[in-house]
Amino acid sequence: MTVRVGVIGAGMIGQDHIRRLTDVVTGAQVTAVTDIDQARAAEVAARVGATVFPAGSDLIASPDVDAVLVTSWGPTHAEHVLNAIAAGKPVFCEKPLATTAEDCLRIVEAERAHGRRLVQVGFMRRFDAGYRQMKEVITSGSLGAPLIVHCAHRNPTVPESYTSVMAAQDTAVHEIDVLRWLLDDEIVSAQVITPRATSQRFGHLKDPQLMYFETANGVRIDLEVFVNCQYGYDIQCETVGEAGLVRLPDPAAVAVRTAGQHGTAVLQDWKGRFADAFDTEFREWVASVEAGTEPTGPSAWDGYAATVITDAAVRSLDSDGTVVTVDMKPRPALYGGTA
Amino acid sequence: MTVRVGVIGAGMIGQDHIRRLTDVVTGAQVTAVTDIDQARAAEVAARVGATVFPAGSDLIASPDVDAVLVTSWGPTHAEHVLNAIAAGKPVFCEKPLATTAEDCLRIVEAERAHGRRLVQVGFMRRFDAGYRQMKEVITSGSLGAPLIVHCAHRNPTVPESYTSVMAAQDTAVHEIDVLRWLLDDEIVSAQVITPRATSQRFGHLKDPQLMYFETANGVRIDLEVFVNCQYGYDIQCETVGEAGLVRLPDPAAVAVRTAGQHGTAVLQDWKGRFADAFDTEFREWVASVEAGTEPTGPSAWDGYAATVITDAAVRSLDSDGTVVTVDMKPRPALYGGTA
Amino acid sequence: MTVRVGVIGAGMIGQDHIRRLTDVVTGAQVTAVTDIDQARAAEVAARVGATVFPAGSDLIASPDVDAVLVTSWGPTHAEHVLNAIAAGKPVFCEKPLATTAEDCLRIVEAERAHGRRLVQVGFMRRFDAGYRQMKEVITSGSLGAPLIVHCAHRNPTVPESYTSVMAAQDTAVHEIDVLRWLLDDEIVSAQVITPRATSQRFGHLKDPQLMYFETANGVRIDLEVFVNCQYGYDIQCETVGEAGLVRLPDPAAVAVRTAGQHGTAVLQDWKGRFADAFDTEFREWVASVEAGTEPTGPSAWDGYAATVITDAAVRSLDSDGTVVTVDMKPRPALYGGTA
Amino acid sequence: MTVRVGVIGAGMIGQDHIRRLTDVVTGAQVTAVTDIDQARAAEVAARVGATVFPAGSDLIASPDVDAVLVTSWGPTHAEHVLNAIAAGKPVFCEKPLATTAEDCLRIVEAERAHGRRLVQVGFMRRFDAGYRQMKEVITSGSLGAPLIVHCAHRNPTVPESYTSVMAAQDTAVHEIDVLRWLLDDEIVSAQVITPRATSQRFGHLKDPQLMYFETANGVRIDLEVFVNCQYGYDIQCETVGEAGLVRLPDPAAVAVRTAGQHGTAVLQDWKGRFADAFDTEFREWVASVEAGTEPTGPSAWDGYAATVITDAAVRSLDSDGTVVTVDMKPRPALYGGTA
Repeated sequence: MTVRVGVIGAGMIGQDHIRRLTDVVTGAQVTAVTDIDQARAAEVAARVGATVFPAGSDLIASPDVDAVLVTSWGPTHAEHVLNAIAAGKPVFCEKPLATTAEDCLRIVEAERAHGRRLVQVGFMRRFDAGYRQMKEVITSGSLGAPLIVHCAHRNPTVPESYTSVMAAQDTAVHEIDVLRWLLDDEIVSAQVITPRATSQRFGHLKDPQLMYFETANGVRIDLEVFVNCQYGYDIQCETVGEAGLVRLPDPAAVAVRTAGQHGTAVLQDWKGRFADAFDTEFREWVASVEAGTEPTGPSAWDGYAATVITDAAVRSLDSDGTVVTVDMKPRPALYGGTA
Repeated sequence: MTVRVGVIGAGMIGQDHIRRLTDVVTGAQVTAVTDIDQARAAEVAARVGATVFPAGSDLIASPDVDAVLVTSWGPTHAEHVLNAIAAGKPVFCEKPLATTAEDCLRIVEAERAHGRRLVQVGFMRRFDAGYRQMKEVITSGSLGAPLIVHCAHRNPTVPESYTSVMAAQDTAVHEIDVLRWLLDDEIVSAQVITPRATSQRFGHLKDPQLMYFETANGVRIDLEVFVNCQYGYDIQCETVGEAGLVRLPDPAAVAVRTAGQHGTAVLQDWKGRFADAFDTEFREWVASVEAGTEPTGPSAWDGYAATVITDAAVRSLDSDGTVVTVDMKPRPALYGGTA
Repeated sequence: MTVRVGVIGAGMIGQDHIRRLTDVVTGAQVTAVTDIDQARAAEVAARVGATVFPAGSDLIASPDVDAVLVTSWGPTHAEHVLNAIAAGKPVFCEKPLATTAEDCLRIVEAERAHGRRLVQVGFMRRFDAGYRQMKEVITSGSLGAPLIVHCAHRNPTVPESYTSVMAAQDTAVHEIDVLRWLLDDEIVSAQVITPRATSQRFGHLKDPQLMYFETANGVRIDLEVFVNCQYGYDIQCETVGEAGLVRLPDPAAVAVRTAGQHGTAVLQDWKGRFADAFDTEFREWVASVEAGTEPTGPSAWDGYAATVITDAAVRSLDSDGTVVTVDMKPRPALYGGTA
Repeated sequence: MTVRVGVIGAGMIGQDHIRRLTDVVTGAQVTAVTDIDQARAAEVAARVGATVFPAGSDLIASPDVDAVLVTSWGPTHAEHVLNAIAAGKPVFCEKPLATTAEDCLRIVEAERAHGRRLVQVGFMRRFDAGYRQMKEVITSGSLGAPLIVHCAHRNPTVPESYTSVMAAQDTAVHEIDVLRWLLDDEIVSAQVITPRATSQRFGHLKDPQLMYFETANGVRIDLEVFVNCQYGYDIQCETVGEAGLVRLPDPAAVAVRTAGQHGTAVLQDWKGRFADAFDTEFREWVASVEAGTEPTGPSAWDGYAATVITDAAVRSLDSDGTVVTVDMKPRPALYGGTA
């Protein structure tokens, strides 16, 4: 059975996911589109033969929509996700799940009341082959308990609109999600330190930033976020355990020896780095919708946790690097917790 | 428009391609299946809702078949491909195009008479990201003219049924195709040398083998074929040009440091190594069928060339390593030649 | 002219340096030896044809001693170094220069009064080829200003006598010295964090430890010290600048592919890793003594700085990870400062 | 005891070895120098306080010379080595041992008559850490019997005086020696193939060349010699055995990420690549002379074998790539043989 997907938000990321559901992933069809800009919605819908809806609520209610994809403006996410839960329809929500911890909790509560998981949040790293290999190694126990994780998240440049808090909210949030999953552990405190800033940036921006996280099990994570590193898009992760370490590979690329150098190209953006992860993310999501099972990706709880932890990081940044305790509610049983 | 594919041959490779056309690649649907084992055909067809046909010729003639996929026993390839050409339908033929140079030529002649290219042969390496990067580097001219190519094609073990000539026919044939394309050059001679044989093999088999090829431009290729190398599936290729070299990467994999070793896992079979290449191969083939354009992959001429060159390699092996000149017809204009 | 060296302290490290001065480095001869254990002194001296002296002061005063090597027990270093300065003789002092900041300052003051530098402290990393290449890259300016340094100092296991404060005093002190030199910058604060401890250690030991340093220029350094990492001796250092990064290489070692793994051996102790650095350290020291020039290696001031900074790290460890400001005197002109 | 070395030939290589014996290696002293250019001999001798001798024979006869180093013009090597054997003095002879197989055999015969080995030939790769690690791995048997060796010997550029036969005589001869030792096997045939020549060279030169060797045990060696590869000095060697392979590492060098590239510098000449090997070569030679034991390095027999094998390669080059059988005498018992 083809899964009929309704898409709320036809901007850049929405269009890219529509392309993915149409051209890359089998088993899905985009049947409905809505956007605050109705002309854009119409244009995008026409390309894939979908119907345009005036609003998210209509789209969600449509009998031609089996599952909902939310790629609208962040502040509108919560409303659409809550509507989808109310309609009992699976919903894939691009990050963030909601812009406040309170709204995330409302979603968690609604899903809990519904009784089974309908929400998947769009953190794609859990679908990256490298992280999956790393998780296998960690889970195998061959390295003993994890003790330390060293990470770097580097990006060549950002536009002027990128602000200092986005280093946590938009950039580090990917590590926050994938590390909670990788370690099967919870982050309990966050700290953000600002080294000497690069001169290659807009004046208002603190870049790079060093983020330190502690987990419930005492694992320490250090994460360099450097969004104007100039040289390329570069994701590093190394987990140190009691008996050894495991490190993410660099993307495979031909090596060239010429002019006195042995070199390989560094990727220039996240698209090349995580294209396969995005594809796998949607392939598995569509499969879970088709099978009628709970989604395997990040849950509403994970979306809540990511928001609470990035909030803590932002508070640390705003208070000159104080260690900020993450104030997280007890995890409900629906998400593997005891509450 | 969905491309309706008829599949001739529902064995292991046929089933894998059916899975690919059904679950991985969008825009295609397997609508017809035939196999010499009708029960198997029925079972496979049932899984994907396809119709079973008694013979390849019926399947090709069906109005529900837009394009044909030939994955039957090698000696039957030529007949099916010729039928597809006669019907004016695009046909994807797994390697070999035909088991004799004569049959390959008959296909080339038929296609030439038809006036445009309908045939794509299933050499998937041209679709591998690493080889494509390498071709880009070579084509850019930054390394000057290519002079030498060093290759290795290693496989952990082979069953007893694998014979010495299969090293050229089934194994090296992949390098033969991809190197002709990579260098945009023709192979003019072949030589096969047998080093000391590994003791880790069946007695009848000469393994490893070293194959040396010369191209029309004077490029020298050395290829180690070692199908019982024990340690893994390992594909190496390095092209040396006048100003530098370019080397295929090893597949990306997490690195682990433990117990005194820094290590990465080596793949154990070709499936992991070329899964993406297979997917891309079919994605591009389906797109070309849908667009009504000539296929972008290996042509009938490439299938002929591969057969003629492997024939030369086999003759060299059979004559104790004599250098054997490749006896190739002039390339017709349809395939970029002047004949 | 052969430099005649008198050695104070004939223990393990003293004997290794005597071997180095005798068998590896040209231009030097060990002519005098003393040790608190006179029998050991006699035995070691006999091997190289040196004279035994009853005490360091006698040895230093000997007309057969051009330069002094102090490899005795740490708490005795200051006295011997001060005596050598008083005698106007070049002195190479193994780390630490002295066990207290006060004693280090006494040496600095004595040298300053003497008017030229006589003291070299035995931090050998400045003589390592990798660190030297890294310094060249940083100094070239091609990466812009350094912003962050990520380091790891891992050791397979330590004996029970190793205590938590030694992670800073004996282990991290090498990074402290080499990073001050690498960055040409001063460390102004230190912090020591204790992640979950490995279970592979003696109960009294906090291992691993994470050390964070800030420099006067705002560079942030993170250093993982893990002395029971089990898998090997592993030194990592990566300096991130405004336009790129530079990373220390792993030691060259043959790669082996076998049994499904591509692997290289990890060294098991510091001897293999820094043998060449030790040789170069002594080669350059002997050359400076022979030339009558000031030593090129770490100065008494560097020895003082290392002690003050490790003191700060120890205070941080003892106070649950508080950030401790390094309390350093102004740098005298003799050492490139303005005081 | 200091070994007193007399040096015959004070040209560039002679001076470099004199520097090594004087400044780098302990236990030796250059006490005598001679050169066809007496002024040069005088100048070089003055630098190290050595006596100048009018001719090699006088120098060899001098009671102040314990051991002889021959670094004169190749055609004069045999005479000096024979004189040293006649005088019963250890002699280190730079490659080649002699310029003809006949002269090499005369030396072998003389040494055999003398009854113990006095001669070491200057092939330094046996002292390189990477090759030594590789030999350890091969000898351990963990990879089973060696079957194939892939090598490359690349050099950025050569002057116009470099001729096509020098690719075997001066360049490949290093691989010829080290591979015989690495495999503990004898080369029985040689073949030289000339791919398309690089346009980056003088017109008379065939470059690159591919050399194929077969050993008595059936191992096949392919060696790319490319002396105008432009990009750097690059030595590659990979030995493939029945259960895996072992590959020489690239020299350790810092990695830099900048401007979209991850790169490491490639060495530009052999000095950097083999400096440590040269030092170890002389350190071990001096030690063997001092100990009065037979030298551990390449013997007169190895020098003979290298000459005979390069002769075969040259004959192959001169006869358009014919396979040329190596015509080697039976190995005398003095060199581990049975003759």
